Amino acid sequence: MNIDGIHYRTIWIDADNRLKVINQLRLPYAFEIVTLHTCDEVRNAISDMLVRGAGLIGATAGYGMWLAAEEIAAAGVTEDAAFDAAFREAGERLKQTRPTAKNLSWAVDRQIQEVASVRGRDKKELARALAETIADEDALSCRRIGEYGLEIIRNLAEKKGKTIHILTHCNAGWLAFVDYGSALAPVYAAHDAGIPVHVWVDETRPRNQGMSLTAWELAQHGVPHHIIADNAGGHLMRCGLVDMVITGADRVTRCGDVANKIGTYLKALAAADNAVPFYVALPSSTFDFTLADGNDIPIEERTPDEVLTITGLSSDGTPTTVQLGPKGSPARNWAFDVTPARLITGLICERGICTATQEGIARLFPEHLSPAHDQSHA
Amino acid sequence: MNIDGIHYRTIWIDADNRLKVINQLRLPYAFEIVTLHTCDEVRNAISDMLVRGAGLIGATAGYGMWLAAEEIAAAGVTEDAAFDAAFREAGERLKQTRPTAKNLSWAVDRQIQEVASVRGRDKKELARALAETIADEDALSCRRIGEYGLEIIRNLAEKKGKTIHILTHCNAGWLAFVDYGSALAPVYAAHDAGIPVHVWVDETRPRNQGMSLTAWELAQHGVPHHIIADNAGGHLMRCGLVDMVITGADRVTRCGDVANKIGTYLKALAAADNAVPFYVALPSSTFDFTLADGNDIPIEERTPDEVLTITGLSSDGTPTTVQLGPKGSPARNWAFDVTPARLITGLICERGICTATQEGIARLFPEHLSPAHDQSHA
Repeated sequence: MNIDGIHYRTIWIDADNRLKVINQLRLPYAFEIVTLHTCDEVRNAISDMLVRGAGLIGATAGYGMWLAAEEIAAAGVTEDAAFDAAFREAGERLKQTRPTAKNLSWAVDRQIQEVASVRGRDKKELARALAETIADEDALSCRRIGEYGLEIIRNLAEKKGKTIHILTHCNAGWLAFVDYGSALAPVYAAHDAGIPVHVWVDETRPRNQGMSLTAWELAQHGVPHHIIADNAGGHLMRCGLVDMVITGADRVTRCGDVANKIGTYLKALAAADNAVPFYVALPSSTFDFTLADGNDIPIEERTPDEVLTITGLSSDGTPTTVQLGPKGSPARNWAFDVTPARLITGLICERGICTATQEGIARLFPEHLSPAHDQSHA
Repeated sequence: MNIDGIHYRTIWIDADNRLKVINQLRLPYAFEIVTLHTCDEVRNAISDMLVRGAGLIGATAGYGMWLAAEEIAAAGVTEDAAFDAAFREAGERLKQTRPTAKNLSWAVDRQIQEVASVRGRDKKELARALAETIADEDALSCRRIGEYGLEIIRNLAEKKGKTIHILTHCNAGWLAFVDYGSALAPVYAAHDAGIPVHVWVDETRPRNQGMSLTAWELAQHGVPHHIIADNAGGHLMRCGLVDMVITGADRVTRCGDVANKIGTYLKALAAADNAVPFYVALPSSTFDFTLADGNDIPIEERTPDEVLTITGLSSDGTPTTVQLGPKGSPARNWAFDVTPARLITGLICERGICTATQEGIARLFPEHLSPAHDQSHA
């Protein structure tokens, strides 16, 4: 995506071989680029949510494994088995940072497996190349998600003959991936194709990624939008002011249950109650083909401080964190919820659109869900 | 309710005949009592939400009409018809302040009607007495709502043999009424009866009345509670962590559709999807017996600034308002939504508990909904 006319990915290796990311904690108030020097710094960036979003967590973990490989090599470990053991250990630590997003363990496991599969070669070069591949694949998948999703929006626009109002929750845009985004990729594609679209942006408490990131992205790209409280979406749907919902996903089971930012489930219920199409957009790296049931997805609980404080600009324009609520009232803070497949109209993936069912997913990804496997669980 | 050991109503006439309210805009950071000197000041207090909540808006409007009567009399208007005309005009202006809560027009119309029904008497004294009656009835209704609701909680506690977890949205507590509250009255009654209860407090963006008012009230009374983001309730219900939901109401149709704080509908959907009982507590002054359909309830849209700013304590303990979101991203801000009757387990009123149906409501309030009327709309 372009920021002030310059194209950026959300993560990249610069000309001096340094890993660069955008500090998403400073948005929308400042566009700050940060260098991550070590795998430790990558771990902290993921757990502190300096980087976040399913695809970007995966890509960052991929690059983190490259830095781990550099550190292992710099420590003089050259023997294959010793290298692989240290590399695996770094990967396991990286996986501890955030439990819900599948892309994280997917990228780490891919690094561990591919790096272990070669012998007598420069494993750190391999890890670097693989990190770049993971990032490139993420960007390409999102571009394709945009192309498939565009057709849904185009059909709606032709049928309705008016601006298409799309509600989204949290940030599953460019900032949540390496480029383009998942949920927002079809929105950008439609806007660029001249189809009139308008986005209802859920502010997405407690971390307000909708208000801080999605609205900022959309404004940068010139897409018309309004921020709304998370409470408002049901009312809008009852009033006929939402034509479709698109969200991202952090982990999707083989039967189509979707873990995504807390509050997604409530919007899916409202969409179903009002016959509003509810789509989830995801690259295949977000699938967890080992899980049948969304109730088996681990749901991260984060610090109550995220509920009890909020950051905005004070009257002099300084980013300021304020304490909310009465002293001594405690809070709880789960980061994700699970939307059951029955509430989902379709999954928009890099290979096309499918129903949120094992049959539909198997049709797009037969190498992961064979028809035989499929039948045994039907 | 007691604040620091002293019993307060939320609105009262003091020994010097001055109208006193608690400034709810300063809570939970300061407990400030304000004098409202004129009907104009009452209007501003209602529209700026210095006072808010269905019952308290009604009671405040009742007292506002007393002040209007004092002002009309002080202007030398003594002739009955002229007084009634000026009084009616003051009432119409008062009704413009907030469109959704039924209690407001109910209290104003009651004043207009009763004051117009007497001739040759001191109408300002009558208006004062009626304002006190409206407030007393509100407090009494809420006490009874607490007694009826207590039995639901007691039954659940006996059946489950554990702490009962109650989710509530916005503030329908003591602060939203003259005393006791509607949704929180059963909670206080259960807590006082030694039944172990715990409340999940929706923060209730954009104005955060859950976080700022409900949590504060519960803390004052010693009721165990946790604040949660509005997005969290669906996840909690899916995880079996909610035994019942109780909310208040701003206007309820004769068929049981409920207008309440924006976001209530989403929680009702989640409750229905997880077989969690969903109760709405209200005094009869909140019913609009003229409306059959919730879609006919006017829904107030308020300033986007309520979404785009928030007030909390800065690090030095000063209440500070910060600007959220990127510059130039607009917001929309509807204050209420409508929960269809089909999602509601029961209505808890001062005369008992009924189903959210015309038949159920008519059984409790036959003087408003006669069986004949009932059949003609069945």
